Amino acid sequence: MEIETGKMRLRDRTRIGVMGPAVCSPRTAALAREVGRLIARAGGILICGGRSGVMDAAAAGARSEGGLTVGILPGDCASEANAHIDIPIVTGMGNGRNVVNVLTSQSIIAIHGGPGTLSEIALALKCDVPVIGLESWSLRSPEGNPPAGFTAARSPEEAVEIALRKARSSGS
Amino acid sequence: MEIETGKMRLRDRTRIGVMGPAVCSPRTAALAREVGRLIARAGGILICGGRSGVMDAAAAGARSEGGLTVGILPGDCASEANAHIDIPIVTGMGNGRNVVNVLTSQSIIAIHGGPGTLSEIALALKCDVPVIGLESWSLRSPEGNPPAGFTAARSPEEAVEIALRKARSSGS
Amino acid sequence: MEIETGKMRLRDRTRIGVMGPAVCSPRTAALAREVGRLIARAGGILICGGRSGVMDAAAAGARSEGGLTVGILPGDCASEANAHIDIPIVTGMGNGRNVVNVLTSQSIIAIHGGPGTLSEIALALKCDVPVIGLESWSLRSPEGNPPAGFTAARSPEEAVEIALRKARSSGS
Amino acid sequence: MEIETGKMRLRDRTRIGVMGPAVCSPRTAALAREVGRLIARAGGILICGGRSGVMDAAAAGARSEGGLTVGILPGDCASEANAHIDIPIVTGMGNGRNVVNVLTSQSIIAIHGGPGTLSEIALALKCDVPVIGLESWSLRSPEGNPPAGFTAARSPEEAVEIALRKARSSGS
Repeated sequence: MEIETGKMRLRDRTRIGVMGPAVCSPRTAALAREVGRLIARAGGILICGGRSGVMDAAAAGARSEGGLTVGILPGDCASEANAHIDIPIVTGMGNGRNVVNVLTSQSIIAIHGGPGTLSEIALALKCDVPVIGLESWSLRSPEGNPPAGFTAARSPEEAVEIALRKARSSGS
Repeated sequence: MEIETGKMRLRDRTRIGVMGPAVCSPRTAALAREVGRLIARAGGILICGGRSGVMDAAAAGARSEGGLTVGILPGDCASEANAHIDIPIVTGMGNGRNVVNVLTSQSIIAIHGGPGTLSEIALALKCDVPVIGLESWSLRSPEGNPPAGFTAARSPEEAVEIALRKARSSGS
Repeated sequence: MEIETGKMRLRDRTRIGVMGPAVCSPRTAALAREVGRLIARAGGILICGGRSGVMDAAAAGARSEGGLTVGILPGDCASEANAHIDIPIVTGMGNGRNVVNVLTSQSIIAIHGGPGTLSEIALALKCDVPVIGLESWSLRSPEGNPPAGFTAARSPEEAVEIALRKARSSGS
Repeated sequence: MEIETGKMRLRDRTRIGVMGPAVCSPRTAALAREVGRLIARAGGILICGGRSGVMDAAAAGARSEGGLTVGILPGDCASEANAHIDIPIVTGMGNGRNVVNVLTSQSIIAIHGGPGTLSEIALALKCDVPVIGLESWSLRSPEGNPPAGFTAARSPEEAVEIALRKARSSGS
């Protein structure tokens, strides 16, 4: 029943959040699947909102490589999780759960996305969790600058590479 | 001890959220104060995060016109509220309270702001609460469009006028 | 438009929470109504969950004496509030809002109640908010003791008198 | 990197919450350790608050049998988790996280405990999550009855046996 077959303890694996819309195009789903795959291949744990669209595709990708997937759900029932979630976390807090997604991740990759994804980008920046955008929002602060802590990536490979490198330490 | 001297019940007054940073320039504080004043003059209830900076200035403005101010606090102690808050709401939920700020408001005015304010803008857009920006963030969706539900205003007068007009009904 | 006609600022009025079930007997509703009346007569602000049953009756009692009522709602819509709520606070956090009810109150009166009310009693004890029970739960800790911070009252008068006396200071 | 060596998918394993105080006696810690061990031996996933005392002992027991442990933390930093937590979930919501503990579990075992544990018992009863008490609180409803959904167990073996049997289905 030992669940760690590799050398690295689960606790020491990097937790990468993948945020994106519950409804997405096939092209965006393909990006998310590839991001999930690369996170699992690198030994990371995938954190996501546990539902459809980008969340489903990223979790499917991670599972296809034997990775571990955590879905932090807005509703009050574990059955809300998509089929690729290993550990459903049931918050019952609606969009209030977006904060939990972000704080649980050591860095996040935002793929495309509507206002919900934008709220996760913003909460991550507020909580000093590094954000990598992949075909996502373009933001200018009131002073006209891109926000500190946000990096735009051009491919799933680049996004995951930056996310792993920038992941804040668990102690921060 | 009757607390409504005007003709309108408290329940029927429009609840306008004013969101902005806890640290701000004198110029931004002056904008916030004027926004607070205009909300109170129009009979609105001011909802804010209850702390310093824009939240303090907006509440001071509203109180100077005899308005009612509600501060929804991140910490676990009412004494965290600034001196101009009539009703402190103590959440103990950190940035999780940003959702409460937004849902309690029938529209929000975002003045300047960092990532915390951006998260409130995004959560409001997600929850169909109209957003009016005043010298605030500039946003482009992945498709390159400004987000639906967001209006940029050029003055406190215009911001409050739009906020009152667009305020979602309590029933929505 | 000045909303304080008495001498006491709203901020200085004691915030008393009244917790109880959403469905209750006429007898329990009568107790809640009297508790609400007495809180308002003493100049207190009534905090409650904003819905039906004990929450509705307590708010009706407070309003009948011109008191101010705050309803902290579990859902994501202000229209969920009962007709006697002046200030609806919309959390969208389900039972997660029970913490907000408790932290916003300087003491709470629990009237009758099921498990939801019991959770508010427990959270109040955890957060050092004094609890007064009126025909409510009977509790014995694992050591066989009644919990510190819990007082059983025999009447609405006694409950409100104790709640006002024990209310923790805003700064605690 | 495949993380499931047994035949059962992680998603299909029963998630049992173990709730108890952050400070406890050696005797209570021994009970918690045994409960954790038995949950892991039965293939369950241990859900807990992730901190010291009963939470630490239960997680240590589960890990000693190669089980998977999830710690749902009140603060905003993963380093708050005890050394036996595999998956830290970081909520930043203080006692608001107690709801997440309960909703994520298919049944909970409350071992000893103060008001925080009592709040988790009550929230579980409210959310129809079965509760098993082990040397824990004694409760009588306003009608004088023990609460429906609460079972007192006399040993770790009995507690885990009941918890597994009563675990609500993921779909409920």
